[in-house]
This record gives sequence, C-alpha cells and structure tokens, in this order.
Amino acid sequence: MRVALDAMGTDGAPATEVAGALGALSDSEDDLEIVLVGRRSLIEDELRRQGVPSHPRLTIHDAPDRVLPGDAPAAVVRRKPESSIVVGLRLHKEGAVDAFVSAGSTGAVMAGSLFVLRPLEGVDRPAVGTLLPTARGPVLMVDSGANVDCKPAQLAQFARLGNIYAQDLMGVKRPRVGLLNIGEEPEKGDERAQETYRVLARDGSLNFVGNVEGREIIRGACDVLVCDGFVGNVLLKFYESVAHFIIGLLKDAMKDLETTLDLEEVFRVLDYSEYGGAPLLGVNGVSVICHGGSPPKAIQSAIRVATQTVRSRMVDHIAKELEARNGGE
Amino acid sequence: MRVALDAMGTDGAPATEVAGALGALSDSEDDLEIVLVGRRSLIEDELRRQGVPSHPRLTIHDAPDRVLPGDAPAAVVRRKPESSIVVGLRLHKEGAVDAFVSAGSTGAVMAGSLFVLRPLEGVDRPAVGTLLPTARGPVLMVDSGANVDCKPAQLAQFARLGNIYAQDLMGVKRPRVGLLNIGEEPEKGDERAQETYRVLARDGSLNFVGNVEGREIIRGACDVLVCDGFVGNVLLKFYESVAHFIIGLLKDAMKDLETTLDLEEVFRVLDYSEYGGAPLLGVNGVSVICHGGSPPKAIQSAIRVATQTVRSRMVDHIAKELEARNGGE
Repeated sequence: MRVALDAMGTDGAPATEVAGALGALSDSEDDLEIVLVGRRSLIEDELRRQGVPSHPRLTIHDAPDRVLPGDAPAAVVRRKPESSIVVGLRLHKEGAVDAFVSAGSTGAVMAGSLFVLRPLEGVDRPAVGTLLPTARGPVLMVDSGANVDCKPAQLAQFARLGNIYAQDLMGVKRPRVGLLNIGEEPEKGDERAQETYRVLARDGSLNFVGNVEGREIIRGACDVLVCDGFVGNVLLKFYESVAHFIIGLLKDAMKDLETTLDLEEVFRVLDYSEYGGAPLLGVNGVSVICHGGSPPKAIQSAIRVATQTVRSRMVDHIAKELEARNGGE
Repeated sequence: MRVALDAMGTDGAPATEVAGALGALSDSEDDLEIVLVGRRSLIEDELRRQGVPSHPRLTIHDAPDRVLPGDAPAAVVRRKPESSIVVGLRLHKEGAVDAFVSAGSTGAVMAGSLFVLRPLEGVDRPAVGTLLPTARGPVLMVDSGANVDCKPAQLAQFARLGNIYAQDLMGVKRPRVGLLNIGEEPEKGDERAQETYRVLARDGSLNFVGNVEGREIIRGACDVLVCDGFVGNVLLKFYESVAHFIIGLLKDAMKDLETTLDLEEVFRVLDYSEYGGAPLLGVNGVSVICHGGSPPKAIQSAIRVATQTVRSRMVDHIAKELEARNGGE
C-alpha cells in the first residue's frame, strides 16, 4: 500500500505533513509506504529537524512548483504541472501509488483530480463528502462545498455516491439517506428540493428516510445527508466555529474554577481531526482532501482514510453501481 | 400602547401565552395593554388557573377558530377568518391595536400579515429577520425561512430592510451588512451570490462589508447577514440544536462532578428566549413571529420587541427608505 502525500498543502507545510506521515508510519502495519511530494530540500530539512532524516518506508518525490492561494483552480494542471498536487495525482494515475492525500486548495485538488484521474463513467460532478460529528456518530454530508447550483439529478447522484461511502467506510449496512430541507413534508422547500425528494423516493437502491431539517442533523437523523455544496459549505464552516465559540465561552467561565472536568475528553466527539480527510467521490482513483488548517493528527487520519478507501475497493463499487444503473435505464 | 397577542400559537397554548402576557404587564410601564386573542373560555380558565382572573390592562378578544398544522398557510385567511391569527391581524389593521404577536404557524402568520396588513409599497417579498447570538452580540439574519429561491434584487431588499431594523431596534448606527457566501472574494459562490454581491456593493445607502463565510458569522463579522431563506432556515435550526447538543455533552460529563460552574449563566448569551420574536419586515404594520416552542419568557420578550418596533417607528422608516429609492430611480 503506497500513499502519495502532498507535503506543501497545509498552513504549516511541510512540518505538519512530515509529522503526520511519521505518525501514520509508526501507527500502521508494515505494508504502508508514504511518498512525500513537494520541494525535496524543504522536506529533507524538515525530516532532519524532526529527528528522522530517513525512514525505510518514506520516500520523497520532488515537485518544485507550489499552488498559491491566488491560482485559479481550473488552470493549475496546465500552468503548474510540476506542483505537488499535479505531480502527486500523476503518480497515482500512473499506478506508482494507490492513493493521493492533500491539504492544499480544495478547488485545485478537485480540478486536478478531475483532470488527471478523470471522473468515473456516468458521474456528472464528483462530490466531497465530509463527516460531521453528531449525537449518534458521524453523518456524511454530500456535497460539502465542491459543487454549487446542483440540479436534482446531481443531488440524487450525491446520494448514491454517499450511500456507497457509508457502506464501505462507515460500515453501515443500509445507510439512512436524508435530504436537507426546511421542513419534513415532501412538498417543503424550493422546487429543486421537491424534485430531488421525488427522485430519491423512487430510487429503490436507497434507504431514503425523507427530508431532514437543520435541527435533526445533530440528532443523527440520517447517515448520509444530501445537500447542495453552497449550504453544505456554510453548515460545515458554521459548525466548526460554533463548537469553538461554545467551548470558548466555557473555558472563560472555568478559568478561575477548580474542577476535574477534562474538556478535551468531553468534546472529543467534536474533534474534526479524528476524521481527517474527505475522499473525492466519483473520480477514478482515491484522492483525499484535507482542511488547510489540519494539524498532524488530521493528516495522519487522512492517510488512514486513504488506505481504508483503497482496501474497501470503494471506487470499484461506485463504478459498478453506476454501470448497473446506466445499463438498467 | 396596545398589543394583540395570539393566545393559541405555542405548543403550550394558551398557558404559555397567558404567562408571557402577565409577565410583560408586570415588567412594563403602565401604558402597555394586551389583548389576548383566542377562545375566550380557554383563556378565562387559564387566567383563573394562574391566579389572575382579571387584570386592568388585559382584555380578551374571542376568536373561535384555530389554525391547525395541516392547514395550508395561503388558505388560512379565506378558510379560517375567525382564527386567532386572522382576527388579531384585523384588530391591528383596523387600528384597535398597535402590533400583533403570534407563535402560531410561521407560514400562516406570514400569509395572513401579507393579506391583511399588505406589503409596503415597493416590497417584493416581506422577510423574517432573526437574531443569532454571537461572540459580539446578536446578528440579524435576513431571511430566516420565509422566502426560498430569492433573486438578487430580493436579497438586496432584505439587506435594506435589515439595515433599518438594525438601526431602529439594535441601536447600530451604521450596520455592517454582509452577504452569506462560501468564500470571501466577490467572485465566490453561485451566480446568484455573485450578482447579489454586485448589487450590494453598488448601493451607497449600505455599509456593505462583503461576503461572510459560515465560520465568520459567530465571530460577529457583520450586524446584518443577508441570505436566502433556505440556507437561513437550515442554519437557524442547526444552530439551536448544536448549542443544545454541546451543552448536553457537558451536562453528562458534569453530572458526577462537584463544581460551582453555573451553566445557565455561562450560556445565557445563547438563550434565544432573550430575543423572543422576529418582526416581519416589509409589511404595513408590526407583526412579530415567535417560535412555536417558545416558553413564557420568549413571549414576554416578543411583546417587548413589538412595543420597541412601534416606538422606533421602524415601519415608517422602511416606507420612507423605499419611497426615496423608488422616487430616485
């Protein structure tokens, strides 16, 4: 099992990536190999700094270019072919590695994955599925920001992609698929929501549980939450910030109190870095997208997500599901 | 100052409304009078039960009909003209009261307000503005669920309505108006967001601070947050539920601990019932909408919002702003 890790993606690159890679190697079985993709000299310096100048299961693949915040995502493949994102994806495409992980610009990783790995046959728009912590374990939200202005047929495809992810990576046999909406009844919401409801309700391959309101998400009303990337992105960012805000209120109140309360333990369920990364759903390969602000632990988790995705053969399962659907129609 | 209160709206009607009204009367100046609108016998029984069979500033206006969850909002005025919602709004229209407050079906209160009070000249769609607690005091979110599929011109109108609300009721001299979007730059988001950005940026009457991402809301990045009612509704319901979820995690962890930490005090800033109600923005009158699950304290707060809205002359200010705009175009 070989994973290429973009070493230049996080806000703390390459130190964060190097620490995450070393953590993954020491925690994993012996069959994991990691290829750090980025500026060789920077990575070598950082490895020395972290006291592991070399490791038998760690190699460096040089990529001199770097994607910058101002770069238009769609132009990255053409204009920065030697960037860590494009080089890492090419390694995967050519079969040198089994998966690619990056905390670089989501738009650039997405565009690069589409261009280099290509979408699976029958996929309109690949989607990003992100796990949200809830009272009943994580919920997979698809799409969490890659696609805005989606049509009902595309939202229904997100449901099918998420359904297979939930089976293969969350271990849910018959995932409960819900549609994010502003009311429970089928006729609630805008026209897009109403039409999406009808398409999902007709789809016998899904365990569709109907509309899910904002307040039901956190109660664990579904395993897969289908939504347009606009509202998904707003929700995701809002959730992270609200959790920080509330915990901040609490810390302020507690700073003069003597208590044995371990806040980190209490709020472990809210810790995004446990989840780490989101595999892009619908491309012909394993491309895992991480938050730019990821700590080493999140990078380590993302590498684990990548290896699980490869082992579960999720991409094959998605391809077969789409093939059966297109053949049957 | 006379306020009509729909006594049949909350999940705990009429007990909640009666308690809220009595609380408002004992807290307010002597010039407040409340008219409870609903089934006279039920309200009289409840007043006796709460130990105040009569009050010099409280009257009952009989309304035998009741709006039920299954009733189509748009048909309520025609089919249930003797419901507490329609009767209360008519009292306001005829000048018998200065404002109307209801925790009944939001759709029915909205439709009834539109039909009975009428929209102000130049208003496309009245909007619901809801206060969200943040680190820097409340943010007014417009629209929070009354309107979905809004066009850029309508979103811009929400910004102008919210701008006047923030001046008149939040006491902010030059409200910072932000557009909810999935990135900071003007070209982020879907076409609707991009066009709305351009309209708001051109509007010299607004202090437009640009796009606001999901994570910036809670940091108090703006005073008025403009969004379509679909995402507004999802966010609002999600926020309430996340706060409950996190506080629940904490209570569980604390139940065996000895501590002097007063959670209610710590999280007072998150308490929606302090805000109570949302005036419908853009109708020719003061119609305040409350959550169906409101406790008495929220009803009392909503009555305060109604009297403040009347005293601030917000409706006149909105009418003048629209007139100047239409005259100038």
